[in-house]
Amino acid sequence: MTNQHQKEQPPGRSWSPDPASALPLHRQISNYFMDKIRSGAWPPGMRLAPQRQLCRQLGVNRSTVVTALGELSALGLIEGRRGGGTRVADLRAAAAGGAVSYGDGTAASGDRAASYGNGMATSDNSAGTDIWPVQPAGSWNSYVEEGVHYPNLPTVQDINRLEYEQGLIRLGTGEPSPGLLPGEAMTRVLAELSRQTLPPLSYEEPLGSPGLRRAVSSELAKNGIQADPDSILITSGALQGLQLIAVGLLPRGSNILLEKPSYLYSIHAFQSAGVKFSGLPMDEHGLLTDRLAREARRTKAAMLYSIPSFHNPTGILMDARRRQKLMDVTGGLGLPILEDGAYQELWLDTPPPLPLKALDREGRVLHLGTLSKSASPGLRIGWIVGPEPVVRRLADIKMQTDYGASSLSQLAAARWLEGGYHEEHLQRLRARLRQRRDAALALLQRHFAGLAAWNVPAGGFYIWLALDKPVPLRTLFRTAHKARLLLNTGDLYDRGDSRHLRLSYVYASPAELETGLPILAGLIRKLQRPGS
Amino acid sequence: MTNQHQKEQPPGRSWSPDPASALPLHRQISNYFMDKIRSGAWPPGMRLAPQRQLCRQLGVNRSTVVTALGELSALGLIEGRRGGGTRVADLRAAAAGGAVSYGDGTAASGDRAASYGNGMATSDNSAGTDIWPVQPAGSWNSYVEEGVHYPNLPTVQDINRLEYEQGLIRLGTGEPSPGLLPGEAMTRVLAELSRQTLPPLSYEEPLGSPGLRRAVSSELAKNGIQADPDSILITSGALQGLQLIAVGLLPRGSNILLEKPSYLYSIHAFQSAGVKFSGLPMDEHGLLTDRLAREARRTKAAMLYSIPSFHNPTGILMDARRRQKLMDVTGGLGLPILEDGAYQELWLDTPPPLPLKALDREGRVLHLGTLSKSASPGLRIGWIVGPEPVVRRLADIKMQTDYGASSLSQLAAARWLEGGYHEEHLQRLRARLRQRRDAALALLQRHFAGLAAWNVPAGGFYIWLALDKPVPLRTLFRTAHKARLLLNTGDLYDRGDSRHLRLSYVYASPAELETGLPILAGLIRKLQRPGS
Repeated sequence: MTNQHQKEQPPGRSWSPDPASALPLHRQISNYFMDKIRSGAWPPGMRLAPQRQLCRQLGVNRSTVVTALGELSALGLIEGRRGGGTRVADLRAAAAGGAVSYGDGTAASGDRAASYGNGMATSDNSAGTDIWPVQPAGSWNSYVEEGVHYPNLPTVQDINRLEYEQGLIRLGTGEPSPGLLPGEAMTRVLAELSRQTLPPLSYEEPLGSPGLRRAVSSELAKNGIQADPDSILITSGALQGLQLIAVGLLPRGSNILLEKPSYLYSIHAFQSAGVKFSGLPMDEHGLLTDRLAREARRTKAAMLYSIPSFHNPTGILMDARRRQKLMDVTGGLGLPILEDGAYQELWLDTPPPLPLKALDREGRVLHLGTLSKSASPGLRIGWIVGPEPVVRRLADIKMQTDYGASSLSQLAAARWLEGGYHEEHLQRLRARLRQRRDAALALLQRHFAGLAAWNVPAGGFYIWLALDKPVPLRTLFRTAHKARLLLNTGDLYDRGDSRHLRLSYVYASPAELETGLPILAGLIRKLQRPGS
Repeated sequence: MTNQHQKEQPPGRSWSPDPASALPLHRQISNYFMDKIRSGAWPPGMRLAPQRQLCRQLGVNRSTVVTALGELSALGLIEGRRGGGTRVADLRAAAAGGAVSYGDGTAASGDRAASYGNGMATSDNSAGTDIWPVQPAGSWNSYVEEGVHYPNLPTVQDINRLEYEQGLIRLGTGEPSPGLLPGEAMTRVLAELSRQTLPPLSYEEPLGSPGLRRAVSSELAKNGIQADPDSILITSGALQGLQLIAVGLLPRGSNILLEKPSYLYSIHAFQSAGVKFSGLPMDEHGLLTDRLAREARRTKAAMLYSIPSFHNPTGILMDARRRQKLMDVTGGLGLPILEDGAYQELWLDTPPPLPLKALDREGRVLHLGTLSKSASPGLRIGWIVGPEPVVRRLADIKMQTDYGASSLSQLAAARWLEGGYHEEHLQRLRARLRQRRDAALALLQRHFAGLAAWNVPAGGFYIWLALDKPVPLRTLFRTAHKARLLLNTGDLYDRGDSRHLRLSYVYASPAELETGLPILAGLIRKLQRPGS
């Protein structure tokens, strides 16, 4: 087994000139850039990173970068633009005045003619980050900025990128650290599968492989959900489930009710589909139901989204009584529910109350589950449970989107569940998460007393840190990044928030938390100081 | 290894009453239906299949079905509706007049209040098919009909479903038959992977696993495409690549030029994103370039989509000269190209000319590739090659959509390519496809001479059968289905078409073609007869 699948050397950052080479450093750099430009990988109009940043990334001093850029400029491959930094030159555009620009002076449809001088809307996406050349490209300029799908929130983009940066302590990452994943048990699953000739890896049925659906059906029964395989759609993770529901069941302009804060605010699946949110407050027992009916009527809500067990980002567990109340109130309205059960099996003290789907006799609840939070995110296996006509409609869209989840992953996931690997892994994982949670709570007690309040999660991944005083969260994110901490700030889960952080004890190790949390406390204190 | 992953017993069709049981057949049926209704899997308002269809699917006679339905009706679980068939009863709706209907008499947003009496727009989706209860459900009624994403074309939905029906000869399926897939070699790949402990299956980087991108980069180099791993985005099959480009790069209202007919007409990725098509004619050397510039200007085209090698559905191979011409004409316009290279490695006689991407020095071509047509569709591994800023934008959307392709599939695909399994498999596959193609051509000669014309494909999967006289293709599809043939009719690839069929020699065996093609010829003759 090679190490080629490790994240530590993303190729985007891997290249730097070789000091041992006979070729001078500046020439190595100009050759490398030349290849990128001549191959079209760096297309006309693409802005290069600022010199300071290039120095840092290439591990060379300023004069080397200046010499290399000078060579490229002399060859006419790059050019400086007033206020626009250094860009890959576009000879044709210089002559013709634009990329896709038709003879009659009109631009390509969607008003997308590339005009290189304009201020590019995405430029602030990279503020505060230190990535490789990020600016949109010449003839692709407007294309990269257009498209129906919104780009991720800048903070989310930053996080997605920075998660691959070495040496950062990731205080809020909602993913088990590699050490918590069952590498050895998963290897046994593969070995078991390879003992006899594999079935051909064809496309699966629209709903997913029958074997995996049967295994998921048995798994759901343990949580009180009676769902036969016809009611189960296999998805590429729970996120894809949300995506399918957003584009498949809700017309543009629909409203959905949800907890505020919520994981759903941090992703774009629903917003990109033109769906609006209406947030409802929570207490320590979960979503408050008293305003629910009024809000549903006011917004003509089409659906309620809830994470009743170990809510993301607050960690709150909705109790049995609140669950029943929620079913009653929404039942009176005939309001469908989307129950996100991503964390329900990750209880740490005692099993949670029955899922909402187990209380549903009308087929009013869609239930999402996943193997990403426990078995392995990289399997990309999740499921949607719901009425047959609904899952069939979603399956049709899934077929249009990607022809279904990986058959190999489905095969491995079925074996994982049926072979008892899952149950065994969960038991071990719970014990380790319990230790990690307790260690995190002890550290909070030591470093955040008098600075913030927090919940004691009974399961899942998260502690929702409520600062006593607000801080500018984007600034905190940036200063934390300089101090080598990666944060999930509260504004990801509630746009207007300025006093929460989502902490997680599943990615950063107890030792990392021991290093990182006091640094974080110091940064917060500094930002809260008057006049800072 | 169990057989649980075989397609032959999709659970949706698998249940039927057990004649050996002590319980009468009708009681077994009413019990089964009762479970479905009480669990909400068949929600209020869902229409059951017609009695005739139920008889066929359950393998019982009419009186048994009538008795079972009578029992359910007596329990108040189902009800007959004037003109609406038999539906699952909705007690609440009967009392309150609708599902999500708010007190002020208004409906849920998006005008979606469920009113069970209305004619359901999707009902014609099932015309001519014999599936399990398909009608949308009561409180989910409007949800299933709404949503941003279009449902698949009825014919495509039918095909997706019927592909799992036993005993059909699939004359047009664009997927290698299970027997052509490398079950044994893939098993060796898994065994190799399981020899040492697997790396943790975490999420991969946004662009995909570095190891697989390196392997794809080497593979592309064999075809003359210089692309380093930073220019490659791993997708869940080429279809997802199209999907990402549709929502990520093109604003609503954009136009793209493409060959007519084209595979792209048969999927909804672009139409659902509000992108319009403008088709250009082809000759035996590929897309005709003479009208291209005028059409690009007229429609203000944002992109050209082309399948230069072994075009789907026509099988046409664009020659080197036409490729260069295409690059020149689009270069003058600055028009980006989306090159679909799904079939390029599947040449049968001699390797095809260089891909368009290999001729691209401006970063103007996005190139799609996939392992689905050769190695295994079920791996769900494809790639997009393009300028770095473009693939990064697409990677960001991919992260929002499903957090990347299966890590397990990526691991297996990298080993598959690097270990030389792919090259070895391709050589064997080409030899087998050559035999199959020649057998198919001989059968056409025997049964379709004087009835149709066809091309001799130099690679890929398809023969484009051009009937001498037009036929009503929907009718042909239905009568063929009754004769146990599944067809890919030309209207899938060109809405206005009434005289083509896409035949494929990769799914149906030579023996099946020998049975199916004469039957097809007979059906066509019958439909062409005057007054038929």
